[in-house]
Amino acid sequence: MVQYSLSPDGERFPLPGQEDYQKEFERLNELVKQQRSLGREIVVVMGLGFVGAVMAAVVADAKDKNGKPTKFVIGMQRPSTRSYWKIPLLNRGVSPVSADDPEVALMIHRCVNDKKTFTATFTYDALKLADVVVVDVQCDYLKESLGNVQDGRADMAALEESFEIIAQHIPPEALVLIETTVAPGTTEQIAYPIMKKAFRKRGIDKDPLLAHSYERVMPGRNYVASIRDFWRVCSGVTEEAKQRVVKFLKEVLNTEKFPLSVLDRPIESETAKIVENSFRAATLAFLDEWSLFAERNGVDLTKVINAIKVRPTHSNMIFPGPGIGGYCLPKDGGLGLWAYRHIHGFEDDIFKITPLAIDINDTRSLHVAQLTRDALRNMSRPLASAEILLLGASYREDVGDTRYSGSELIVRRLTEMGAELRVHDPYVTHWWEFEKQDEYPSSDHSLKRFFRGQEKLKDLRVEQDLKKALDGTDAVILAVRHHHYLNLDPEEIVTSAGGPIAVIDCFGILDDAKIKRYFELGCEVKGLGRGHVKRIKDQVNGRRDEG
Amino acid sequence: MVQYSLSPDGERFPLPGQEDYQKEFERLNELVKQQRSLGREIVVVMGLGFVGAVMAAVVADAKDKNGKPTKFVIGMQRPSTRSYWKIPLLNRGVSPVSADDPEVALMIHRCVNDKKTFTATFTYDALKLADVVVVDVQCDYLKESLGNVQDGRADMAALEESFEIIAQHIPPEALVLIETTVAPGTTEQIAYPIMKKAFRKRGIDKDPLLAHSYERVMPGRNYVASIRDFWRVCSGVTEEAKQRVVKFLKEVLNTEKFPLSVLDRPIESETAKIVENSFRAATLAFLDEWSLFAERNGVDLTKVINAIKVRPTHSNMIFPGPGIGGYCLPKDGGLGLWAYRHIHGFEDDIFKITPLAIDINDTRSLHVAQLTRDALRNMSRPLASAEILLLGASYREDVGDTRYSGSELIVRRLTEMGAELRVHDPYVTHWWEFEKQDEYPSSDHSLKRFFRGQEKLKDLRVEQDLKKALDGTDAVILAVRHHHYLNLDPEEIVTSAGGPIAVIDCFGILDDAKIKRYFELGCEVKGLGRGHVKRIKDQVNGRRDEG
Repeated sequence: MVQYSLSPDGERFPLPGQEDYQKEFERLNELVKQQRSLGREIVVVMGLGFVGAVMAAVVADAKDKNGKPTKFVIGMQRPSTRSYWKIPLLNRGVSPVSADDPEVALMIHRCVNDKKTFTATFTYDALKLADVVVVDVQCDYLKESLGNVQDGRADMAALEESFEIIAQHIPPEALVLIETTVAPGTTEQIAYPIMKKAFRKRGIDKDPLLAHSYERVMPGRNYVASIRDFWRVCSGVTEEAKQRVVKFLKEVLNTEKFPLSVLDRPIESETAKIVENSFRAATLAFLDEWSLFAERNGVDLTKVINAIKVRPTHSNMIFPGPGIGGYCLPKDGGLGLWAYRHIHGFEDDIFKITPLAIDINDTRSLHVAQLTRDALRNMSRPLASAEILLLGASYREDVGDTRYSGSELIVRRLTEMGAELRVHDPYVTHWWEFEKQDEYPSSDHSLKRFFRGQEKLKDLRVEQDLKKALDGTDAVILAVRHHHYLNLDPEEIVTSAGGPIAVIDCFGILDDAKIKRYFELGCEVKGLGRGHVKRIKDQVNGRRDEG
Repeated sequence: MVQYSLSPDGERFPLPGQEDYQKEFERLNELVKQQRSLGREIVVVMGLGFVGAVMAAVVADAKDKNGKPTKFVIGMQRPSTRSYWKIPLLNRGVSPVSADDPEVALMIHRCVNDKKTFTATFTYDALKLADVVVVDVQCDYLKESLGNVQDGRADMAALEESFEIIAQHIPPEALVLIETTVAPGTTEQIAYPIMKKAFRKRGIDKDPLLAHSYERVMPGRNYVASIRDFWRVCSGVTEEAKQRVVKFLKEVLNTEKFPLSVLDRPIESETAKIVENSFRAATLAFLDEWSLFAERNGVDLTKVINAIKVRPTHSNMIFPGPGIGGYCLPKDGGLGLWAYRHIHGFEDDIFKITPLAIDINDTRSLHVAQLTRDALRNMSRPLASAEILLLGASYREDVGDTRYSGSELIVRRLTEMGAELRVHDPYVTHWWEFEKQDEYPSSDHSLKRFFRGQEKLKDLRVEQDLKKALDGTDAVILAVRHHHYLNLDPEEIVTSAGGPIAVIDCFGILDDAKIKRYFELGCEVKGLGRGHVKRIKDQVNGRRDEG
């Protein structure tokens, strides 16, 4: 029976059969022969996910001083029902990732159809043709409980399998560059022994040329630039590997403007990535306790932060909003803790702030449910069976990325408390975490298992018409700073809702004038970290009494 | 019996007697009459410590568009044996604080002797003449145990007494500006009721005009600029107080280039200061666990940090060195926790990262003793009775400020472990924490009580001659990044010491070439957060074997 892979647009692609592999390798061989005659290096990028697809295109787009392409890229992806569709799509010149950066689609189209420096394939035999292999296979961290990152493990299976397959196929002198964010020590203590063993089995005496360099990709309008035009850190297992990775990165990235940091050992590069993202997670988590302090003591934390971040030394202070999502910040610290025990063999607990920060960030958004309940209670409406509209599903403003977004937890908590949820997000057409909540990304990852009564959320659909979404709601939660939400008019909101509602501002979206206007319209307002709201309410009520 | 106050230079000043007060007030009255006729406002600055003395001079130095002075400043200080000497010294035009910023001495001299806009006094009656009172009385936080900031309390006595005295003396329309870093809520919930009550006793119906604005003073070469040419945050208890404080700060600070942040309520300004410093403490403490991870896994954390801080969003990442000292960072978070319970009446524990960061920072330097022990052990020398030279006593590079320095804890810990300590610091002539360890700053503050066998440290003197200090040492601890220590020559160090020694680098002071040289000279090297040191040692030993 032929199996199919379904693209997000609903197109069905039959998975390749046994007979297709030989033909596919011949196609690649032919292409590579031509490309080599043009003096181009062959780069195989393993993993065509969020990072790999764009990194592959950046490499395929690289050119020398005369403007001529220097690399031919083969993007590789296992032909699973979940992911195979990316390959035929890419080979048409269509991006498999939907990005807010218009350059992604343009660059992929250009490299596939015009420059012809980019093809995608499903066969591991592509590795036999590689001068350089770039590994962008995910390394997840699986959490067993909510708000306790210590109770979890690095999911190394896919990565370890990749290392073995690479070593079984590549020419011995190929450079293998691991770009994946990994548990510190992975390159030298996991990848190296696996690959060396496979080399020896093949009768190869040479040691594998292994390097690590992490990306600093940022979803949004500057997606491509965040890969190509940004500082990189790298290192290699041997001096030769180090020199090779430096040469490669200088050829494909804008290292003149954004110089490389070359570290002594791969573990230093791996550690840098984890420290970098854990630092960010910690600075955000730090504000959670002050957010609560502010709420309870009449302080508007958003104004306090603005007053502080004027200082250049404090300019990276960011109001944490309803939780810290995205693919990296919730997990990277976990990889560090795990490595300390499971790669390096230590038994003691040296990590304090790193896990605490993740635990705080992972549960911060739950407080929004509490604020929603309190606001509705002030209006004498029970939360159970209340109609609640969430504005914003993604984890970050003005992107359509819902991975581990605080909004997901808000929906899940309010649902188990009995509320009826609706969602609006101009950037998100399908909220897969709910629509495919039993399979996406995998049940091990799904946050569903931490909440009761989640079955009905299978039917949650993201509404694109804000007016329609508002009709008949009891409460609106402003969860994301999408630009669409920054200047909503209180009158129009209340009119569309059909009367006074509860408004919960999770991200300092409402200025004091708007908060006042909502109160004047009979609404109830609560704000994450915004303790001054009560003062505005009192002012409005005072004036009413006088009036 | 006449009591005396001893200046740091050893000059004795008799404390004023009862009969001196009337005369002093007449002197002030006369001065104020002249100054008012010149159109100047009278500003009384209470507390002539680290901040007050310089703030007073900045105000006295303020001028209008025509370059004419606009304020006459009376610096006020209680005439205690410990502090009275500041008053006669100031009245000669001599700075009572020794600062690395040459502008401090120049400005004080200029204002006292040339512009004649600054005088100092011991009588509270000065308050009767004030248009503006600036409160720079310290509010300490007393810790009952080491590494547990939750076990402590704000020391409000001096501040509360000041509020009462101010209200008993000032004209009702005087603005009272609290500059002290206080527990959030202090202005509105402690100062305001105290002052209002005192006003009512005096038959004054008006409410006190109270404001809060915190300084961001930084010891070092830009001390004056850090007060005058830097951003300020402020607020007032009433609209009138807020307008008055804005007006005052605009007249005395460089607010054109560094605009004011005016917040709604004093608690917001007070909270901003605590959040600001707690944020800094947290970002530093965060690296402690990664420092240990680095040490144990061959990673040089200093290189990792340099690779990370290239990112503009991570540029404020700083290697924490041996603990985080200074007057502010170890205590400010404590004032926040304390306020939550003791001013606002909450019972739950909402603070997680803020206290944890302080606890980590307060004990980080103790690990240096462990590294010293390990380094000596590798040389088969026992730590007990070893001669150990500490390079750097102050809490920060290129300043002479020893308050809560990590170096103090290193000395205390190594002393209780039986080592013989010597200290060198080009900026510190007297290390009062030891020389006056039974009285300075007070036994409640002294860290002495947390360690055994500290009596002999009374005799600890700071050596100014590095060569002499090195003679016969077993170990050298590089504790502070004073510029004098950044390029010490390994050969010279070993020669001065009289043979191979243990070298402990607490602050990434040694580059890899120097570390290698020390090993080649037969020394043992350990570094805080520098796990790559062992690799360099192995290289050196390998070469020796080959050679």
